[in-house]
Amino acid sequence: MTATELWQWDAADLAPAIRSRKVSSFDATVAVIDRMHAVNPKVNAVVRDLSDEALTAARAADEAVRRGDRLGPLHGVPVTIKENIDQIGLPTINGIVAFKDLTATEDSPPVVNWKKAGAVIVGRTNTPAFSLRWHTDNDVHGPTLNPWSKARTSGGSSGGASAALAVGIGPLAHGNDYGGSIRYPAYTCGLAGIRPTMGRVPAFNRTSSVERSPSNQLMAVNGPLARRIRDVRIGLAAMAGCDARDPIWVPAPLDGPPAAAPIRVALVVQPKGQYTHPAVADAVRKAGKALADNGYAVEEVEPPSFEAACQVWRKLVFTETRHLTLESIEKLGDAQARKSAGLWLQLQPDISLKEYMQTLAEVLTHRRAWAVFMETYPLIVGPTSGDLPFEVGFDHKDAETFRHVLDAQALMTVVNMLGLPSAAVPVGTTPVPDAPKGLPLGVQIIAPRFREDLALDAAEIVEAVHGISTPIDPVW
Amino acid sequence: MTATELWQWDAADLAPAIRSRKVSSFDATVAVIDRMHAVNPKVNAVVRDLSDEALTAARAADEAVRRGDRLGPLHGVPVTIKENIDQIGLPTINGIVAFKDLTATEDSPPVVNWKKAGAVIVGRTNTPAFSLRWHTDNDVHGPTLNPWSKARTSGGSSGGASAALAVGIGPLAHGNDYGGSIRYPAYTCGLAGIRPTMGRVPAFNRTSSVERSPSNQLMAVNGPLARRIRDVRIGLAAMAGCDARDPIWVPAPLDGPPAAAPIRVALVVQPKGQYTHPAVADAVRKAGKALADNGYAVEEVEPPSFEAACQVWRKLVFTETRHLTLESIEKLGDAQARKSAGLWLQLQPDISLKEYMQTLAEVLTHRRAWAVFMETYPLIVGPTSGDLPFEVGFDHKDAETFRHVLDAQALMTVVNMLGLPSAAVPVGTTPVPDAPKGLPLGVQIIAPRFREDLALDAAEIVEAVHGISTPIDPVW
Repeated sequence: MTATELWQWDAADLAPAIRSRKVSSFDATVAVIDRMHAVNPKVNAVVRDLSDEALTAARAADEAVRRGDRLGPLHGVPVTIKENIDQIGLPTINGIVAFKDLTATEDSPPVVNWKKAGAVIVGRTNTPAFSLRWHTDNDVHGPTLNPWSKARTSGGSSGGASAALAVGIGPLAHGNDYGGSIRYPAYTCGLAGIRPTMGRVPAFNRTSSVERSPSNQLMAVNGPLARRIRDVRIGLAAMAGCDARDPIWVPAPLDGPPAAAPIRVALVVQPKGQYTHPAVADAVRKAGKALADNGYAVEEVEPPSFEAACQVWRKLVFTETRHLTLESIEKLGDAQARKSAGLWLQLQPDISLKEYMQTLAEVLTHRRAWAVFMETYPLIVGPTSGDLPFEVGFDHKDAETFRHVLDAQALMTVVNMLGLPSAAVPVGTTPVPDAPKGLPLGVQIIAPRFREDLALDAAEIVEAVHGISTPIDPVW
Repeated sequence: MTATELWQWDAADLAPAIRSRKVSSFDATVAVIDRMHAVNPKVNAVVRDLSDEALTAARAADEAVRRGDRLGPLHGVPVTIKENIDQIGLPTINGIVAFKDLTATEDSPPVVNWKKAGAVIVGRTNTPAFSLRWHTDNDVHGPTLNPWSKARTSGGSSGGASAALAVGIGPLAHGNDYGGSIRYPAYTCGLAGIRPTMGRVPAFNRTSSVERSPSNQLMAVNGPLARRIRDVRIGLAAMAGCDARDPIWVPAPLDGPPAAAPIRVALVVQPKGQYTHPAVADAVRKAGKALADNGYAVEEVEPPSFEAACQVWRKLVFTETRHLTLESIEKLGDAQARKSAGLWLQLQPDISLKEYMQTLAEVLTHRRAWAVFMETYPLIVGPTSGDLPFEVGFDHKDAETFRHVLDAQALMTVVNMLGLPSAAVPVGTTPVPDAPKGLPLGVQIIAPRFREDLALDAAEIVEAVHGISTPIDPVW
């Protein structure tokens, strides 16, 4: 550990230091809060400052250490929570003006689990209205900025979480991922993160007036973002405990049996039909080489039924948006949310009940094909996004740019449809005029169901070779 | 063990006896085959006789014992497989005339798993066309008879499996359950069985030309029937191994942590809105008393949202039948299947895409409510069916009798919708004029997800107090 300032520390260093009283949770929390107050005004990542509550919690955490209490794996560690899940006493705004006073009366399962693990919540992070965009901006809090470049998106929907991490507001951030909302912001801000397997991390928002849609139940997960893979691992384990309020959760062990060596990796440099920027393709190759140099058997192979699989995510998510969410978006959403929804629906004509049923059924067909493929190749490494972090507003420019964005995210959304775990990990930076330190690149490492451990093992190797230095100061 | 004839033995006695060479698999298999040849003509339970293959397999099993091979938990034990899952080289007829030559080119996962465990398959058992009825009869093989009474149904759709077990054709039978198709035949024939948790036992039929429907993916499972709960336990463990072809399967441990003592049981004597025959209500009370006498804390309590939950199963299954299956049923089904489908659709008007999405989403609402309820009451004990095993043809008499049947099965189908595990266990018999030995009664014991162990523990107690003597000779 070379970092000197406490706000720069990883959770993996902070937690044992707090447990062994080398560092106090109070000092660590003060450091993170000071950092937040210094840089958050520039990036607008944290949209609810919980400094007071955090200091109280940190003092209590230090008390518990002194008392010799049984301590959780995140004991005393400062973290953030995305403002689209319930946290008791606070509104679950989800980027929606009308929800400014939608106060939660109980903690959602990820909050319960991280609190149980001892985490100290320093703030709530920004998200677009309805968490429905790969960029973070809304009429409640305004835009979150990417500390690498003002001109580039901080990603979305967990763009507040990612910008906060990138500038050093806590080593761990909560996010969720229905179409890439953990992996994409991790990518745009040069971070690590994992979209866990469906059923790994429990979810439930009592404040929500409608049930989760069928595709949301099949594809949306909560998970951690962090600056380092080792922190992702700790954050995931701490978030994964059982909660009866989520009957999708399953009691699968966090670590599976060792995979047969050498572990075979399907390297997907340029997924069929997906736009892939040359710098991104290069990053995928670099990640593949890092793995090959470390004992993995890496081959360029295309996973099965890729293009058909892409269509399934779009068809289900957009059709459900049309029939279940559009009315709310039109009533409660801001202009940006309405714009997003409009672009989505323009791309996906309405379908019949029969076709919807068949498409929903088809999810299993693809999941089966990939599961069988992954018996041979337990890991699939490919672009997180096919393009560089896009320029702010690019997704809303017109139907053509939106389609470009959608095409660039193909492998990302396919993973949602498949319900698979996938770790995002940085692979160096690439120079662009608007980013003095370059723009982060990265890959995602997709593993079989409930084998986050395999994805994180490989991600740690890629990180060791190609990791980038964070936290950073905003470049302006 | 008091049984003298090998065909009367439980798997739990046979397997260790074969392993330790006290009994040969060959002798056990010959005994079961002889029994099959003696009584199957009366009940028509096994519709494909695999005697030759079984004798070869039994000889090989004995060889393996002699060689000192590593042996599976069902090594050398004769079993049956329902004729609606793929078994290599044999047709997956599923009660459909047009599928008489639909030959499987690979074993389905339950067959793979039982073969891996060492089971010897003596025959394939009957099922109604499309496995779509609580009674077993079709134009391919004709009706399966209930050995307790010719006038009563053997149950369905695993009615071949249950009649075979009841007369002593193997101690273990494979079945599957999308609307009670394991529990109902177990009930009508005085047997034990378990509908495992969704995701516990892998499934896949390569011969199927269409993907499993959305509600089938949420509700349909494979599992074992047996004469004794201890055999159900062995059969389940042997069937539950991973198979990549089923991405719904999850790596959850078979045994969970001990539940807090005393284990609280919600006794549902007469589920709200469900027809319940007085003898059935009495059986539920008896089961409750047996548990109370053995350390369980039993209360009469109604689980949450029962009536609304019933509607969800009907709405989803019948609507999918209308849009996805009806065409095939009309083209390929026999008159009985068409009759069933007609009665179903008469009860459920068509719904909009939006309502279908909302109903599918609502599944999670009920699953959550029950999961939270089961934090307090880990076990729910109630009727398997609310009525006595119904008279053959009663379900097809008219819309009114069909509705009566549907109402009697309410708690059974709710469990499907909830994806929960539920063990069926006999609770004595009740005298009726058409059944000289009486008709079997029984209850189901519903447990939290992946806690089949808790359901089976309780079922074993009920069985010890109220179990009935099987196998029997057909009463005519």
